[in-house]
Amino acid sequence: MANECVFCKIVSGELPSTKIYEDATVLVFMDINPLEEGHALVIPKEHLDPITNVPDNILKEIIVVAKKIAAAQLTGLNAVGVNITQANGSGAGQEVPHVHFHVIPRYSSDPKKANWKTRKYKSAEQMNQIADLINKAL
Amino acid sequence: MANECVFCKIVSGELPSTKIYEDATVLVFMDINPLEEGHALVIPKEHLDPITNVPDNILKEIIVVAKKIAAAQLTGLNAVGVNITQANGSGAGQEVPHVHFHVIPRYSSDPKKANWKTRKYKSAEQMNQIADLINKAL
Repeated sequence: MANECVFCKIVSGELPSTKIYEDATVLVFMDINPLEEGHALVIPKEHLDPITNVPDNILKEIIVVAKKIAAAQLTGLNAVGVNITQANGSGAGQEVPHVHFHVIPRYSSDPKKANWKTRKYKSAEQMNQIADLINKAL
Repeated sequence: MANECVFCKIVSGELPSTKIYEDATVLVFMDINPLEEGHALVIPKEHLDPITNVPDNILKEIIVVAKKIAAAQLTGLNAVGVNITQANGSGAGQEVPHVHFHVIPRYSSDPKKANWKTRKYKSAEQMNQIADLINKAL
């Protein structure tokens, strides 16, 4: 547990939350500032961050729970779609530095689109070079 | 394999791609319309969609590979953060109906923010009722 971590305080009960699911490893609770109604956060109970520091066995449990929450949003809330998103680092928009998966039900067949625009690589060579850098770092 | 699925055609080699990683279950390749340079797509080789139809064992392999790609983007591309996102249903903005995880390196400490705004629940009761609907559908 990290002393000043809001999510650790939610896990310990020091801060209140509306819990949806809980097991020995994973906690799911409602985001109080939802992007859509029913927006849930899936977290490991252990203080881990970012995703690259989450042991595989814990990460596997988290994603299986996220899948279950998505299914429950589709059936229980009559959602038409679900987004699962996860940010690592303030440069990625992460606000609470305790790894968390957002599971967000969607209700419209004409969804709000993000304003984050795709682009094109300058050339196939540029793309290949970048792919090679990732591959070599694996 | 689904006959008209673009990602199945990439898996089979019928369509070209810049591959970053491949094993028996999972393929990772470059998104040709990246949100940021190095934007990768992690998919199961099998045609599965949406995430709620992906068997747990395959989903676990996918997320572990996504984690590895994120780590490689941080070290290999000097990214300052990584977003991992996944959409289910056209209402969630999904374009190719073959489950895929976007792994997107971020390079700025002052990131572009999405224009998708958070909101507040009308009341704690409303939030609790929605949480209960999800919980009962689990």
